[in-house]
Amino acid sequence: MAALRVGTRAVEGRFQTNGGAMAPSVRLLPPNREAKPRSNHSAAPGKARRRAGPMPLWRVAVFVSVALNVATLALLLHHYATSPPHHHNHHDGALTRSSDAVDRQARTASMAPSTGKPAVTPDSVINLDHGDPTMFEAFWRETGDAAELVIPGWQTMSYFSDVTNVCWFLEPELDRQVRRLHRTVGNAAVDGYHVLVGTGSTQLFMAALYALSPDSGDEPVSVVSTAPYYSSYPAVTDFLRSGLFRWAGDADTFEGDSYIELVCSPNNPDGTIREAVLASKTGNGKTVHDLAYYWPQYTPITKRADHDIMLFTVSKSTGHAGTRIGWALVKDRAIARKMTKFVELNTIGVSKDSQLRAAKVLAAVSDGYERRPEQAKGTTTPPHRLFDFGRRKMVERWSMLRASAAASGIFSLPEETSGFCNFTKETAATNPAFAWLRCDREDVDDCASFLRGHKILTRSGAQFGADPRYVRVSMLDRDDAFDIFVNRLSSLK
Amino acid sequence: MAALRVGTRAVEGRFQTNGGAMAPSVRLLPPNREAKPRSNHSAAPGKARRRAGPMPLWRVAVFVSVALNVATLALLLHHYATSPPHHHNHHDGALTRSSDAVDRQARTASMAPSTGKPAVTPDSVINLDHGDPTMFEAFWRETGDAAELVIPGWQTMSYFSDVTNVCWFLEPELDRQVRRLHRTVGNAAVDGYHVLVGTGSTQLFMAALYALSPDSGDEPVSVVSTAPYYSSYPAVTDFLRSGLFRWAGDADTFEGDSYIELVCSPNNPDGTIREAVLASKTGNGKTVHDLAYYWPQYTPITKRADHDIMLFTVSKSTGHAGTRIGWALVKDRAIARKMTKFVELNTIGVSKDSQLRAAKVLAAVSDGYERRPEQAKGTTTPPHRLFDFGRRKMVERWSMLRASAAASGIFSLPEETSGFCNFTKETAATNPAFAWLRCDREDVDDCASFLRGHKILTRSGAQFGADPRYVRVSMLDRDDAFDIFVNRLSSLK
Repeated sequence: MAALRVGTRAVEGRFQTNGGAMAPSVRLLPPNREAKPRSNHSAAPGKARRRAGPMPLWRVAVFVSVALNVATLALLLHHYATSPPHHHNHHDGALTRSSDAVDRQARTASMAPSTGKPAVTPDSVINLDHGDPTMFEAFWRETGDAAELVIPGWQTMSYFSDVTNVCWFLEPELDRQVRRLHRTVGNAAVDGYHVLVGTGSTQLFMAALYALSPDSGDEPVSVVSTAPYYSSYPAVTDFLRSGLFRWAGDADTFEGDSYIELVCSPNNPDGTIREAVLASKTGNGKTVHDLAYYWPQYTPITKRADHDIMLFTVSKSTGHAGTRIGWALVKDRAIARKMTKFVELNTIGVSKDSQLRAAKVLAAVSDGYERRPEQAKGTTTPPHRLFDFGRRKMVERWSMLRASAAASGIFSLPEETSGFCNFTKETAATNPAFAWLRCDREDVDDCASFLRGHKILTRSGAQFGADPRYVRVSMLDRDDAFDIFVNRLSSLK
Repeated sequence: MAALRVGTRAVEGRFQTNGGAMAPSVRLLPPNREAKPRSNHSAAPGKARRRAGPMPLWRVAVFVSVALNVATLALLLHHYATSPPHHHNHHDGALTRSSDAVDRQARTASMAPSTGKPAVTPDSVINLDHGDPTMFEAFWRETGDAAELVIPGWQTMSYFSDVTNVCWFLEPELDRQVRRLHRTVGNAAVDGYHVLVGTGSTQLFMAALYALSPDSGDEPVSVVSTAPYYSSYPAVTDFLRSGLFRWAGDADTFEGDSYIELVCSPNNPDGTIREAVLASKTGNGKTVHDLAYYWPQYTPITKRADHDIMLFTVSKSTGHAGTRIGWALVKDRAIARKMTKFVELNTIGVSKDSQLRAAKVLAAVSDGYERRPEQAKGTTTPPHRLFDFGRRKMVERWSMLRASAAASGIFSLPEETSGFCNFTKETAATNPAFAWLRCDREDVDDCASFLRGHKILTRSGAQFGADPRYVRVSMLDRDDAFDIFVNRLSSLK
């Protein structure tokens, strides 16, 4: 789950949109995918004979030219998959000729999807207020069509995905891939759990509050979390002034036996590994574990989590925040039913297109670590491994940040901790998705405003129930923004 | 907005999932799309020479074989786009050979998306309780790749779509296509309106309640609608026991000056054309217009609606319920901001994948009525026109239903009304998406249970604040289910 404060003056105004991304309708085929059908399809030779008469050389010609077409397409595919967005309109132009194609090119240009925050310059305001995980784009550009989604116009039109499932709107393939990835990584137990899908894990967070609130009860149940806690917890809990649940602040100072404790581990904002701090004597206390960051790129996987309710999201696991898919692993069937009911009443299910895309992406991640012999056969390229990429980037960025803070001399960061990772089978340091940065300068009591004065947007510790001398800084933005950030930070005295 | 009651015994149990749909990763290209790039790309001839040596016949061979490949692919494409789902696994098998391909075939099969409710038999329970719009699948199967979506793995990963827009998570292309379609149909004003996107219009309905509720106020504002009203209105308004708004029932009997009136027109469940019935003296009364069914397939477009808040959804306009995309047209900027804030807190935006798919689908609908010369050139097939298809089907189904009710003799239906449609430029009858069916038999005081006894699932009038002698019946299911329904209905005495 990431926090957003769009709508504040600081965030608006300063961005422009960038419509230059690769048009989704531009499509190229990888080798093998179509070659066979072409040569096998009975209509093909027939047409050939009609056009050029029977000639023995033809079969050879056809096969060889198919091979060269495919080779060409492979080159183009690689080219498209790796070129920066703003190049593509040019290439589209070069690739299209007929008036029909020109029209398609026009539609194509207008169909360009958004790219989020545009590229930055050394003078830009650097916005690291949200955990926008665009760092991962570089990885997915390299995976070619492994994570590409194609949906014909007539598919997945029904509200229903599997009416025999408690979560009747969950695509069976997403269920499969979620369980497969957790088994691959070993970060959470899935056997005996219900998988529920939500529009991001934020929706599932609300669903959990709804499901865990007592049906009868004049007083809303208290929702608590140890400070510093994720800034969205109080906002999301209270914005509708529900009579079912109410934000009650820091779990450490909470007194009472009826509560819902939110445990975020690794913790947003400070990256610490958390356990529940409250224990209910009467069983009226419930716990929700937000494990959005419990993945090998951020922290060693020290045990297989097996809590009653565990929340995950593609936003932080694979970087696909725009897809808005989260999932919950839930032990109790009645709770799973009630959480499902929440999503039914709130949004009548969850986008099937996004579920299929998430399934494709999670499958690509698992494939990277479980490449079967027939997949490896004939391929010289190493498999694309998301967690290797993520860990490499995070290690690199954290060392850059620590060097920058040291060079500046006025900032401090949490101590680095480490542990043995059961997934990588080696000792690894924690590399949190957010930096919990403290400004040590005596005359600075509001670190966020101090940094804003230097065109660096972060989130004040005050929003996490903590000291405003602290700020939360996203470590997941694109390279250009991160580089400018660390350079700028090191110059502050 | 469609109503769901999944989780009731009646709905569960009796369905099975159907995993046999066309795998989304199977892709074929239409003519022209790749022919030009292949022959233009400099790498191709080079490779050709290296493999077979310089030979004049080659250039001809390559070009002709490309032509025949493309022709073959066009045939296959047509075949895939029009074959029923359960045929595809067979074809996949026929199209794949190498072990790599076999592996892909396995992944492909496992990637098959859900199809919602499976095909029915004359003995099946026919579930017409929800407005599952699968009737429209037949139309989209015919449109080929016009509405096909392709998203590379690295695209739309950011939370942001356009941070300069009030609705910062709205894909600019969806904004464009929403405005274009309303201009094409003339059913709603768009100039001077903000377009907001939601996870289905249900989320935007909640967003509107949130935005229209007074910031300060000890009492929740009363939410009302004239009976019979859409059964989800009370459920969605009250399920979180919000202190901001509270369901207050039938607008006709409401007394007070502070309220939010929901006006659904054409009305769900009875298809009547509605106007607001309350008028506030102090300006504390607000109105939300749910125009989900104000499209030419259901009713004549008699005027361009220009209310303060208007809700629409792809579920009922194009039939893409599984995509979960709705939009709101909002006049006031402050209201638009607050509705956007609701979606931000509820789900941190809306799936970009689904927004791009909705944009593609809406574009295909507008293209059907605005085909440009360069598109028409060389094509002999008539344009695919969604509203023509929808109206034809609805007229056909309503005449079948009226004949069936007449044959039975124990049911009555609303009188048919008609008007001049500014879109089709002819007088047209209303053909509501739901039938508001009354059982006239003296000994039947609960029409829903009576029909359930004959394995027809409908929704009781009681849930719409009306007489249980009435039921709401979906008119939008697949042909097979609808045919069995009308045959079964006509036999009831």
